Amino acid sequence: MAERVREKEKVEIQELLRRHPAEIAEILSALREDEAVELLRRLYLKRAAAAPLGEMEPEEAARLLAELNRDEAVRILSRMDPDDAVDLLAELPQDTVQDILRRLEEREAKELSELLSYKPDTAGGLMSPEVVALPADMTAQEAIEALRRAAEGAETVYYAYVVDEDRRLIGVLSLRDLVFTKPDTPIRDIMHTDVLTVPVDADVEEVARTFDKYNFLALPVVDKDGRLLGIVTVDDVIDVIRAEDTEDMYKLAGAPVEERVDTPWYRSLRLRLPWLYFNLLTAFLAASVVGAFEGVIAKVAALAIFMPVIAGQGGNAGMQTVTIVTRGIALGEVPKGKGWRLLGKELLLGICHGIVIGATVGAAAYLWKGNPYLGLVAFLAMMFNLVAAGAAGAVIPLTLRAMRLDPALASSIFLTTVTDTLGFFFLLGLGMLFVDKL
Amino acid sequence: MAERVREKEKVEIQELLRRHPAEIAEILSALREDEAVELLRRLYLKRAAAAPLGEMEPEEAARLLAELNRDEAVRILSRMDPDDAVDLLAELPQDTVQDILRRLEEREAKELSELLSYKPDTAGGLMSPEVVALPADMTAQEAIEALRRAAEGAETVYYAYVVDEDRRLIGVLSLRDLVFTKPDTPIRDIMHTDVLTVPVDADVEEVARTFDKYNFLALPVVDKDGRLLGIVTVDDVIDVIRAEDTEDMYKLAGAPVEERVDTPWYRSLRLRLPWLYFNLLTAFLAASVVGAFEGVIAKVAALAIFMPVIAGQGGNAGMQTVTIVTRGIALGEVPKGKGWRLLGKELLLGICHGIVIGATVGAAAYLWKGNPYLGLVAFLAMMFNLVAAGAAGAVIPLTLRAMRLDPALASSIFLTTVTDTLGFFFLLGLGMLFVDKL
Repeated sequence: MAERVREKEKVEIQELLRRHPAEIAEILSALREDEAVELLRRLYLKRAAAAPLGEMEPEEAARLLAELNRDEAVRILSRMDPDDAVDLLAELPQDTVQDILRRLEEREAKELSELLSYKPDTAGGLMSPEVVALPADMTAQEAIEALRRAAEGAETVYYAYVVDEDRRLIGVLSLRDLVFTKPDTPIRDIMHTDVLTVPVDADVEEVARTFDKYNFLALPVVDKDGRLLGIVTVDDVIDVIRAEDTEDMYKLAGAPVEERVDTPWYRSLRLRLPWLYFNLLTAFLAASVVGAFEGVIAKVAALAIFMPVIAGQGGNAGMQTVTIVTRGIALGEVPKGKGWRLLGKELLLGICHGIVIGATVGAAAYLWKGNPYLGLVAFLAMMFNLVAAGAAGAVIPLTLRAMRLDPALASSIFLTTVTDTLGFFFLLGLGMLFVDKL
Repeated sequence: MAERVREKEKVEIQELLRRHPAEIAEILSALREDEAVELLRRLYLKRAAAAPLGEMEPEEAARLLAELNRDEAVRILSRMDPDDAVDLLAELPQDTVQDILRRLEEREAKELSELLSYKPDTAGGLMSPEVVALPADMTAQEAIEALRRAAEGAETVYYAYVVDEDRRLIGVLSLRDLVFTKPDTPIRDIMHTDVLTVPVDADVEEVARTFDKYNFLALPVVDKDGRLLGIVTVDDVIDVIRAEDTEDMYKLAGAPVEERVDTPWYRSLRLRLPWLYFNLLTAFLAASVVGAFEGVIAKVAALAIFMPVIAGQGGNAGMQTVTIVTRGIALGEVPKGKGWRLLGKELLLGICHGIVIGATVGAAAYLWKGNPYLGLVAFLAMMFNLVAAGAAGAVIPLTLRAMRLDPALASSIFLTTVTDTLGFFFLLGLGMLFVDKL
C-alpha cells in the first residue's frame, strides 16, 4: 500500500516537473507552509527546486528555504540565478547569510557577497553578474562559440559585450549581428560602439524609465570608470515596474506598502493602524478648526451642512492634481525646474474650478435656504478651497521630491489635511464675518 | 547667407539622425507644433520620420501626421512597424483612414485594416503581424537563413514559430536553439511543442500578467482555431503595463485618464470638471444627511466638531481597503470566488480598527468636553463607520468587477460617498438619540 502511494507521488512529481517553474512557484505559494516545504524537498531531490524559488516573492522563498537544513539550502542557492539568490539572501537574518556564504564555493560566495553590497533599489541590486564579455579581436565565429559555451550560465545570450583589457565596456553585439554576418569578421568591425549603459548606483525607477523609453531587452551595468559589472534584463524590469507602481498607489492612499491581498488579517491590522493613527492626528487638526468656530455653528447650524461639500470637493480636486503630478514625476515627465510651471497651471485651474463649482455650490446654498449671504459664503469658501487644493496638490509631491522623499508618500493624507482645515476655516470664518446676515 | 543657414541646418539634421528614435521623438514632443511639423518634414526627406513617430504617443503622432500632405503621410505610414502604424491610424478620423488605406499598397492596406479590426485593448490590438512562420521540415540552417531574410521586416527574430499547412501553430524555436545546434537538424526535432500562446481577444491586462509571470520576450497570438496571427513583444507590454497602472491610479482618484502633466490647462479644465461635478452630486448627498439633522447640530454644536474625524477616518480606512483590493485584482491575485473571503477579512479588520480607533476618538471626545455620552456617541459612530468603510472598500471594487467594469473606476468617490453619508448618519443619529444627555 505504502508502495502504491509512493508510486502515485512519483507520477505526480513527474507531472509537476513538466510545468513551467512560474507555475510550480504558484503551487508552492498556494500550499500550507508544511506542505510547501515537503514539496520543495521533493523538488530538491529532483534538482528542480532552484528555478521555482527564483520565481517566488523573495520574502516567501526565504521563509520556505529557512525550513530546509543548511546543506540543502546552500545547494539550492548555488543553482539559482545569482540575482534571484541575492534577493532571497537579503530576506534572511545576517548570521544565516554569513553561514551560507561560508558553505558556498569561494567563487560563488564572492559573487553573491559582492551583489549583496548593492542597495536593492539600485541597478546593482537588480543586475545579474553573469554576462558575456568578449575581447574586441575575436571573430564572429569565435564569439558565437563563446556564447554557446556561456549559454548555460549567462542570464541572456542575446547580447554580448565587448570589453578592453581593463574590462571597460567598448561595444555591444546582438546574437542577431553575429549570426547574420560572415564568420571571420572581427567583432571590432561589427560591434556598436555607442552603448547605452546603466550606472550601478542608478535608481531602479530610472532603470525602468530607460527600458520603457528605448525598448531594449537588456542593458549593461557599469561602475563609475565604465567597467562592465553585469546586466539588467527586461523581465526583471517588468517586476520592478509593477512593484514600484503598486508602492506608489499604496503610498498615495496612505496604505502600508508591505500588504497584499493574501496578508493574514492580524498582520494587516498591525500594518494599517500606524497609518490610521497618523490620519487621526490630522483629522483632529481639522476638528480643532471646527471647534474654534463652535459658537458660529450653534448660531447658524446650516453652515455644518456645507462642511462636507466644501471639504469633499477640495479633497477630490486636490487628489486629481496630486495623482497627475505624482504619476508624471514617476514616469519622468516632470524635469526638475519644470515643477513650478505645473504649480502655475494648477493655480489657474483652481481659480477656474473655483468659479464654476463655487457658483454651483453658492447657488444651491441660496436656493436651499433662500439666504443670499449663505450663498455668498458658500461660493467664496468653495472657491478659496479649490484654489488651495490645486496649489497643495502640486506643492505636496513637488516638495516631497525636493526633499528627496517619495512624491507619493502619504500625499492623500497631507492633501486632505490642507483641504479639510482650510475648507472649514474659509467656510466657518466667512460664516462668522456674516453671522448677523445668516 | 541663406546658404550658410541651410548648411548649418544640414549639419544639425545629420547630428539628429545619429540619435536614437526615442530621443528624436522626445524632441518632436517638446517643440511647438509648427516647428515639430517642420522637423518631421525634414526627417521625412531623409526617410527617417517613421521610427520617431512610432516612439511617440499615438495621439500626438497622429496630430503631427495630419499636418503633412496625404502622400507624405502615406509614405511614412508604410515605413512604420504595422503595430505602431495602426495605433496611429486609430487616432485619425474615419474618412482620413479610408483615404490613406486606398493610397497604400494592397498588401499593406489589407494588413493594416485587419489590424484595425481588433479592439485596441486586446492582444490583437497590441500584436505585430510580422512574425516568422516556418514549416516543420526545414533544417536549422534553412531556418537561420529564413530568419536572416526576415530580419528587416519581422518584429523580432529571436523566436521563430513552426506552423502546419493551415498555419496552425505547432512549435517554437529560439534563435539560440537554432544557432547552438547542428545545421542539418530538422527543426521538428528541436522545436518546443508546448507553446504558450495568447488568444487574439485576450485583454491586455491578461497579456501583461502572462509576461509578468513567465518572463518571455515575445508571445505568439493565435485565433480560436490555433492559427498564428502575430506576435506581442515584451517592450509593447511594458508600455501597456505603465499605461494600465496610470489609468488605475487616475480612476482610483477620480481623475481623467486622458490627462498628462503636459496637457494644456483649458483641456485639463474640460476633462476634470465632469469628475468634480460627479463628486459634487455625492457631496450634496452627504450634505443632505447633515441637513436632516440640522436641529440636533443647533442644540449640540460639539457634534459638528467630530464630523471631519468620523468621516475622514472612515475615508482613509476605506481607501486602504479599496487600494489593496483593486491592486490585487489588477495583479491577478484575487481569483473569482475568492472575493468574498476578502470581504470577511475586511469586516474583521473593520471591527478591530473600530474598537481601537473608536476608543481613541471616544476618549478624546470625553476628555475634551467632559461629557461621557459625547464620548460614547463618538466611539460608536467611529466604530460603525470603520466597519462600513472596510465592507464598502471590499464590496465596491468586487462589485465593479462582477459588473465587468474596471474595479478602479471612481472607487474613491463611491467610497467617500459611503463613508461620509453613513459617518454623518451614525454620528448625528446617535447624537439625536442622546440629545438630552449631551
